[in-house]
Amino acid sequence: MIKRINIIGAGNVGIHLAKALSKHLSIESVYSYNLINAKNLVSEVGGNAVSEIEELSNEVDLNIITIKDDYIEKIISDLPIGIPTVHTSGTKGIEFFKDFTNYGSFYPLQTFSKNTYLDMSKVPFLIEANGKEFEIDLINLVQRNLSKNTSVVDSQSRANIHLAAVITNNFTTQLLVEAQSILEKSKIDLKILQPLLEETIRKSFLNSPKQALTGPAKREDIKVLEKQYDAINNAKLKTVYKLMSELILGKDINF
Amino acid sequence: MIKRINIIGAGNVGIHLAKALSKHLSIESVYSYNLINAKNLVSEVGGNAVSEIEELSNEVDLNIITIKDDYIEKIISDLPIGIPTVHTSGTKGIEFFKDFTNYGSFYPLQTFSKNTYLDMSKVPFLIEANGKEFEIDLINLVQRNLSKNTSVVDSQSRANIHLAAVITNNFTTQLLVEAQSILEKSKIDLKILQPLLEETIRKSFLNSPKQALTGPAKREDIKVLEKQYDAINNAKLKTVYKLMSELILGKDINF
Repeated sequence: MIKRINIIGAGNVGIHLAKALSKHLSIESVYSYNLINAKNLVSEVGGNAVSEIEELSNEVDLNIITIKDDYIEKIISDLPIGIPTVHTSGTKGIEFFKDFTNYGSFYPLQTFSKNTYLDMSKVPFLIEANGKEFEIDLINLVQRNLSKNTSVVDSQSRANIHLAAVITNNFTTQLLVEAQSILEKSKIDLKILQPLLEETIRKSFLNSPKQALTGPAKREDIKVLEKQYDAINNAKLKTVYKLMSELILGKDINF
Repeated sequence: MIKRINIIGAGNVGIHLAKALSKHLSIESVYSYNLINAKNLVSEVGGNAVSEIEELSNEVDLNIITIKDDYIEKIISDLPIGIPTVHTSGTKGIEFFKDFTNYGSFYPLQTFSKNTYLDMSKVPFLIEANGKEFEIDLINLVQRNLSKNTSVVDSQSRANIHLAAVITNNFTTQLLVEAQSILEKSKIDLKILQPLLEETIRKSFLNSPKQALTGPAKREDIKVLEKQYDAINNAKLKTVYKLMSELILGKDINF
C-alpha cells in the first residue's frame, strides 16, 4: 500500500493533489524549480521543500510528477528507477518510464486554479499502469484519497479524452471571451448568457448534444447566418463562425 | 393592462410561452400553419386553434409572434395594425411593424425544447417597444407572468446578444457533438467530460472567462497543440482547432 509520497511540481495540479493526499498520507518532499513555491506548499501539506531532484526523499512508495508536459521526459531521466513513479499528464504516454520497475499515470480530468476550491471527490481520474498489481495500487490510492470516479484507460484513449476536453472546455471558455467582447459593444454583462449556457450543457448531457442543438444553423436559417457572419469583425472568429455553422449544418455554406 | 392574447406559432417557443402565460391570462387563439399543432396546444392552454391568420381573435390586447424568423415579415403584413403586436425573435428588428400603433419584441434568451421542463422564472427576457407606455406594459406582462429577469435593449443590442448566444451556446453544443465522436473511438462516454465542463462554466461566470482559461494553448504548449491538430481527422474541425488555439494564444501558429 502506498503511504509515503513525493510531489514533483508545485503548480495548480501539484497543489490540489498534495492538499488532498496529505489528509491520509505522508508527503515526504515537494520539489519545485522555484523553491518558494515548494516552501509555500509544504507549509500546508508537510514534508521538505526542495529545488534539486537529488534532494527528493528516497524513502517513499511513490513519486508523483505534476510538472508541465514539456519537462516530464527530462525529470523522468533524473529520477531513481526503483521507486514507483507516475505522471499526471493528459497528453504524455508512459513509454518514457520503460526502465522503471513500476510506472504509470493518473490524470485528473479537471481544470485546476490555485485559489479556487474544488470538490476533488467529483473529479474523474484516468489511470494507467505497466502492470496489474501496480494498477490496483494506483486505483486504491486514488479511490481512497481523491475520488471514486476512476477509469483505467491506455495512453491512446487518454490522448483522445484530452483532445475532447480541450475542444469542449478550453474552446468554450475562449468562445465566452469572444462573446464578452461582442456584448461589451452594447454594455451588456456576460452573465446574461449564464442561464442559456447552463441549460444547454444540462440538456446536452441529459440527452445528447445532437438533440440539444438549436439556433440558426440547426434551423438552416442561412439569412441569419450571413447577417451574423457579416457582423463579426475578428477575422479568425469569422472563419470559426462559418466552419462551426457548416459542422452543424453538415454541409458547406456559400458566403 | 394586457389580459387577452393570441399566440402565433405553436413551436418550441410558442408552447413554452403559451403554457406560462395561460396561468394568469386568457389565450384567445393559437395560430399554427399546421392546425394539429395549434389544436394540441389549445387543449392545454385554452382558446381557439386556427390555421388562417384571419381567424385569429380580434378581441385581444396583444398578438405574440413566435414563428420562425423567415416568416415574421409576411405574418406582420397580414396582422391588424390596431392590435399591439410583438415578436420573440433574437435577430429581427422591429422596423417591420412601423404601421402599427404599438409594437415591439420580447426575446427569451433561452433554448427551448418541446418536452423538456424549463424554469421560466430564470429566463432573461430582452424587451423593446416603440413607446414608453407600451414598454411598461410589456415589462409588466413579462415580470408578472414569465420572469423577473428583464432588460430593455434596442434591436442592435439584441442582435449582439443573439450573436454572442449563438457563439457560446450553439457552438459549445456542436463542440460536444465533435467530442463525442472523438471519444467513441475509445468507447468512452461523453459524460466523462461533464464535471470538467461544469467547473469551467462556473469559473468563467464567477470570475471571467479569460481567468478561467487553461489548457495547452493557454500554456503556449505548441508541441501538444501540433500533436492534437494532427490527431483530428475532420478537416473543418482541424481548422477550428487551429483558429481557436490562435485566438487563445493571441497570435498565429505555424503548422
